[in-house]
Amino acid sequence: MIDATHDPARTSWVASANGHSDFPIQNLPFGIFSPPGGQPRGGVAIGDDILDLAVALELGLFEGIAKAAAQAAAGSTLNAFFALGAAPRAALRARLVQLLDAHGVERSNVEPHAGRLLHRAADCTLHLPAAIGDYTDFYAGISHATNVGKLFRPDNPLLPNYKYVPIGYHGRASSIRPSGFDVRRPNGQRKRADEAEPTFGPSGNLDYELELGIFVGPGNALGEPVSIHAAGEHIAGFCLLNDWSARDIQGWEYQPLGPFLAKNFITTVSPWVVTPEALAPFRIPQPVRPQGDPAPLPYLLDAADQAQGALDITLEVLIETPGLKEKGLPPHRLSRGSSSDLYWTAAQFVAHHTCGGCNLSPGDLMGTGTISGPTPDSFGSLLELSQGGKAPLTLASGEERRFLEDGDTVIITGRAAREGFVSIGFGACSGTILPALG
Amino acid sequence: MIDATHDPARTSWVASANGHSDFPIQNLPFGIFSPPGGQPRGGVAIGDDILDLAVALELGLFEGIAKAAAQAAAGSTLNAFFALGAAPRAALRARLVQLLDAHGVERSNVEPHAGRLLHRAADCTLHLPAAIGDYTDFYAGISHATNVGKLFRPDNPLLPNYKYVPIGYHGRASSIRPSGFDVRRPNGQRKRADEAEPTFGPSGNLDYELELGIFVGPGNALGEPVSIHAAGEHIAGFCLLNDWSARDIQGWEYQPLGPFLAKNFITTVSPWVVTPEALAPFRIPQPVRPQGDPAPLPYLLDAADQAQGALDITLEVLIETPGLKEKGLPPHRLSRGSSSDLYWTAAQFVAHHTCGGCNLSPGDLMGTGTISGPTPDSFGSLLELSQGGKAPLTLASGEERRFLEDGDTVIITGRAAREGFVSIGFGACSGTILPALG
Repeated sequence: MIDATHDPARTSWVASANGHSDFPIQNLPFGIFSPPGGQPRGGVAIGDDILDLAVALELGLFEGIAKAAAQAAAGSTLNAFFALGAAPRAALRARLVQLLDAHGVERSNVEPHAGRLLHRAADCTLHLPAAIGDYTDFYAGISHATNVGKLFRPDNPLLPNYKYVPIGYHGRASSIRPSGFDVRRPNGQRKRADEAEPTFGPSGNLDYELELGIFVGPGNALGEPVSIHAAGEHIAGFCLLNDWSARDIQGWEYQPLGPFLAKNFITTVSPWVVTPEALAPFRIPQPVRPQGDPAPLPYLLDAADQAQGALDITLEVLIETPGLKEKGLPPHRLSRGSSSDLYWTAAQFVAHHTCGGCNLSPGDLMGTGTISGPTPDSFGSLLELSQGGKAPLTLASGEERRFLEDGDTVIITGRAAREGFVSIGFGACSGTILPALG
Repeated sequence: MIDATHDPARTSWVASANGHSDFPIQNLPFGIFSPPGGQPRGGVAIGDDILDLAVALELGLFEGIAKAAAQAAAGSTLNAFFALGAAPRAALRARLVQLLDAHGVERSNVEPHAGRLLHRAADCTLHLPAAIGDYTDFYAGISHATNVGKLFRPDNPLLPNYKYVPIGYHGRASSIRPSGFDVRRPNGQRKRADEAEPTFGPSGNLDYELELGIFVGPGNALGEPVSIHAAGEHIAGFCLLNDWSARDIQGWEYQPLGPFLAKNFITTVSPWVVTPEALAPFRIPQPVRPQGDPAPLPYLLDAADQAQGALDITLEVLIETPGLKEKGLPPHRLSRGSSSDLYWTAAQFVAHHTCGGCNLSPGDLMGTGTISGPTPDSFGSLLELSQGGKAPLTLASGEERRFLEDGDTVIITGRAAREGFVSIGFGACSGTILPALG
């Protein structure tokens, strides 16, 4: 719901939040951070700073359900906050807007405490926002599925189930890390087509995948599906996600049960959880299905979700290589796409995931699957950009890239913009490739 | 290591532990239970009773590392106990043998407290032994893989990677339940070959899968593989596991990323964790690979593991149907097989799972994959027994079964026996099918 918290005229007394920050007062994402020498705790990003919820509670700045929400969000994970659902989260958001408003009645009470209440984000360590019980990765980027399918089945890239089933699989929760954590190139089994037997060693085809992550809110009990009509209530927020993938390991191991070691060596998420409330202005209709595509089955069909269940978030992937850095050149933009290219909505993920009774828990994470657009400038992986490694990219440094090299840093960014609203961002989701263990 | 704790002449002063109990004094598996009206806590199965570790600690029955292990095992999950590794677990086992020995010096100190120390298992509720962070299911039953492959690819049942890669995939941790939890038949998408489009509704091809479960011990940090030579140290114990599967949902959804909703509606485990120490006498060599099979790659090859890394546990699947019960007939035995049919060992699972850097945590669960023997009397699923549903089984009640019907109960049992040793069991792993939600 678009409400007064989205007022584009509002600015914050935290000056760095005004202008083109990812974190203006219209955003207010939640996360877990440690100030220098301190323990992990809940905070809210505002400009270049982080508002410390525990300090705000000590200062008595909350009451009612906003206070209950702030208490749930002030601990070392956001799981309890996610479990509360939408109304407490929205109440806390509304109160935070009052507290941070440059022209609000609370400014004179709050700003004098800024030294305690705010931490410079650059001085803090950011952690995973939640203890992630289970992680599920979907495959809803239809252009990605088509591009990858073409590499294996040129005549029939999309499998027959694709337009009926929100295809997904279980991923590894233990190896999810926040932005900035280094990515060790995995060793594993791989076999080239011209080899008789597989060998064990470093992946030669290391790749990224551009995705959005979705944190689960209240969740459901085992055996009690969440209807598509209620599914939106179970989404606590969004982040950026890099589903690092070792293509050579994947190609050898994935049949018949799907990717395993090719993707479980690390998954990176951006540490700030952008709420459904902050993203309300950037909702769009579920993209019109091309003529001939089947309608979603009834358990995936909800009028409001069809009308505004998708999101228009502009997503970019940048690569910073040793050669670019050496020559003082800026990172190279690999692609720029939009989450509007997803075939299924977050609510459809929830309804599908639970339709057989599977239980979701607060803090569980869902990935959208790789988000690619229809043209190469919006492809969300090197697998697609280099056509499976056959067509290397050339960077301004003269370096070529089929896949990632040691020392490369991949940076994903996301930003939602709409005429008449203040645009908001997600912060960065980045990781640097370290050489494989010898 | 076979040691004095396996002395076949030893009996317990807990009389029900002697004779043919699953839980003689030579077994002593760990689990989490609630006595009537009490909170979940750690215990040890002995005959028909459960030894309450918290009470034993109160009585001052432990010291040194056995005491530290008992303290770690006395809480509401066994995760902290699993994290300790083998030596403390073995020390606690050795001390428990002293305390429960019919002819030991401790009997006169301990037996007078039996009223507090022991609970009748039949009066208690058994819980999951650990908070399971991640669950991985392997596919190491080569006869099962061959049988299932034949249904889809008669000429080439095993895929080229099978004999090189311990094939596995990530399962759903949140829906794992202890024995006795009812199994709600899932709704989902399924499409018969003669249908143009999928429909949504109750699975018509509900199946079980006979597996062993393996609980992870200390585990590893992200990016630090566990060598095959150290892998055995990371196995905390074994249980029975039923990987309930909706074959019609699976057939429609599983390409290209593997099973998802077809298997995440519930997974059942037996609640007692049988330790590697208890199973030491039942170790066998990794089965000799048939002529022509490749040797395991070096990262999966360890001489001790080859010599004694496999297990010989006899596994049975029974079905109790409404018709059998009505006629006063006993449950029907569907199959009887052995864990010796697995192509890979538990240590190979650990080494493979971590070889690319993926981190395992204490309490994580690994399934072996369905254990089938080469002949139908040892097939571990109805998919195999009924040849994909084409050849129904007829029970003594006159009922036919292609797949499971509402009201059916599937019971898995396991028992390890060897000449010169007291045989040990796992308790039951059972679940009853409830009708799908309307």
